[in-house]
Amino acid sequence: MVPNLENLPRTIVVERRDAVPVVRMIDQRLLPYEEAYLETSDWRMVVDAIKTLAVRGAPAIGVAGAAAVMLSAYEAADFDDFSQRLSAAAAEIEHARPTAVNLAWAVRRAMELAADMARDGGEEPAAIAEALFALCEEMIREDEAVNRAIGRYGAALLPDNCAVLTHCNAGSLATAFYGTALGVVYAAFEQGKLRRVYSDETRPVGQGARLTVWELSRAGVPVTLICDDMAASVMAAGKVDAVVVGADRIAANGDTANKIGTLGVAVLARHFGIPFYVAAPRSTIDLSLADGAGIVIEQRSAAEVLPRPIPGVDVENPAFDVTPAHLISAIITEVGVFAPNDLEKELWK
Amino acid sequence: MVPNLENLPRTIVVERRDAVPVVRMIDQRLLPYEEAYLETSDWRMVVDAIKTLAVRGAPAIGVAGAAAVMLSAYEAADFDDFSQRLSAAAAEIEHARPTAVNLAWAVRRAMELAADMARDGGEEPAAIAEALFALCEEMIREDEAVNRAIGRYGAALLPDNCAVLTHCNAGSLATAFYGTALGVVYAAFEQGKLRRVYSDETRPVGQGARLTVWELSRAGVPVTLICDDMAASVMAAGKVDAVVVGADRIAANGDTANKIGTLGVAVLARHFGIPFYVAAPRSTIDLSLADGAGIVIEQRSAAEVLPRPIPGVDVENPAFDVTPAHLISAIITEVGVFAPNDLEKELWK
Repeated sequence: MVPNLENLPRTIVVERRDAVPVVRMIDQRLLPYEEAYLETSDWRMVVDAIKTLAVRGAPAIGVAGAAAVMLSAYEAADFDDFSQRLSAAAAEIEHARPTAVNLAWAVRRAMELAADMARDGGEEPAAIAEALFALCEEMIREDEAVNRAIGRYGAALLPDNCAVLTHCNAGSLATAFYGTALGVVYAAFEQGKLRRVYSDETRPVGQGARLTVWELSRAGVPVTLICDDMAASVMAAGKVDAVVVGADRIAANGDTANKIGTLGVAVLARHFGIPFYVAAPRSTIDLSLADGAGIVIEQRSAAEVLPRPIPGVDVENPAFDVTPAHLISAIITEVGVFAPNDLEKELWK
Repeated sequence: MVPNLENLPRTIVVERRDAVPVVRMIDQRLLPYEEAYLETSDWRMVVDAIKTLAVRGAPAIGVAGAAAVMLSAYEAADFDDFSQRLSAAAAEIEHARPTAVNLAWAVRRAMELAADMARDGGEEPAAIAEALFALCEEMIREDEAVNRAIGRYGAALLPDNCAVLTHCNAGSLATAFYGTALGVVYAAFEQGKLRRVYSDETRPVGQGARLTVWELSRAGVPVTLICDDMAASVMAAGKVDAVVVGADRIAANGDTANKIGTLGVAVLARHFGIPFYVAAPRSTIDLSLADGAGIVIEQRSAAEVLPRPIPGVDVENPAFDVTPAHLISAIITEVGVFAPNDLEKELWK
């Protein structure tokens, strides 16, 4: 069975309209009931899209961050203080959200290209902006290729006729295309190994309820939506053969920050003897952090949990949690599958 | 610190209006933003209230079931086939919902009284109906007394300055008054031992998000609402000293059916070394079941999870799960605290 990937949108593209660079993103706040696109040539709008979750998912906000830098370069190219303007924009873009390392990684990659061109060749701002546009195109192609490699490595880990549980959306919508955790799903489905996906709702934003079930049903992959508090029940009934999730930042020791609720699913998987896999590109690994204790967890608005306040009721809304390496069966990357403890040794030996 | 219990409504009362018996219930579908009451003299409306979750919580639907039998007795008293009518109504009432044993227990208690009166004294239907009215009043008084005893026994288990996590609503709203799990909370708060309650939202119906936080804030108990998928994060941060939940049916070996999600919280509590307590009246214990495998789990409508369907997306919506006895630190009843394995031996020795 082949997933109908042609039914899935490109999450983010860069285009030229009458020579003007445009970033086009599907507005993920409106899914699953409305498929609409944001188009802008203003880098500040891209930052806003990242902050308001119109575009989300660690790899996708990486690409969006690079695209925002590119737009800011076109804007700054008309000014004498090009470099200062570009750096100021990059700093703002990099800090749009704190937890996913891919955003900082992508912004720095773009800024290194710009710095190299300015220094080595003394290139003009307009040429730098053009090069950043080409870099965005390259990062989008690269991200899809990375995800397809993750999918192949991950599918090989799954048993025949399996059902997978996932939390949040580490799907095509979380990347330029194809997805990380759902890349594993698409590859396994194509190999005839995958029977069904159980998708946690993923409160409060509902990335599972709104995005994962939407893209899987579009692609023709059988999917069952469950509330977050049903995962234990489904596992206890023997319905789940493996858990596959994405990641926002992986520390050198394998501790993994991902969407809030991932830690709970990992604890359940361990209790019920189900393998728990993290699927993520190498760009998600942050070797500057020895372990998960150093990962900054974004706290978001109480209104996401409780849109209409109740007097006297407090709310906590951490957007991520950290799953310790010892609960992770393996980390699936584009260059292979690793035990969490071997990440640093194997990937940068 | 004394909880402001006078700010809490009576969940269910039986009254006479111009000699007509009336059942009055707070409509829990409208909380927390609207406080409205259902009043009816029609037992079918009470069954409807049970099915639609206007009244819910194992002890409260027990009382509601007895009250429905009482109303049906007044209705049937005008007919020659009183007994048949009463029995037919009782059968329908008893099966309004399948999982909580208290409903069947309360209906049978009412029907035994009716049968005894009809047989022993050859009492008139009108006298039986009057006796059932008095029984309902007695069950309401008794339920509150039972809960206050549960509260005292449970509070003694908690450490000083503690924070408790709860799932669903086993509060005053789930009982005639005071609550089981929240009875423990109110007693501990009164003793100055309790600092804060963490309340899981409890998707899909939101008993935590709508009911638990409402009644705790009304009573002046500090409460923090979290999404179900945040419980692991809050526990990992060391913010929770004990978990206290209610129960819908407890098998002879201590296996406990309770609101969907309870099993997951129990697994998390075990993983993080946090005691996990079940607070429930003896009427929740079903000695006819050796273990939890025999407990019927109610499957509810997909629309509770996904009000607007998404084509190609399946939904599971089990209303309860079963927590195995080995994950339960103790079961708190009105006659004392028991290890799950000792229930049968200790309570019916």
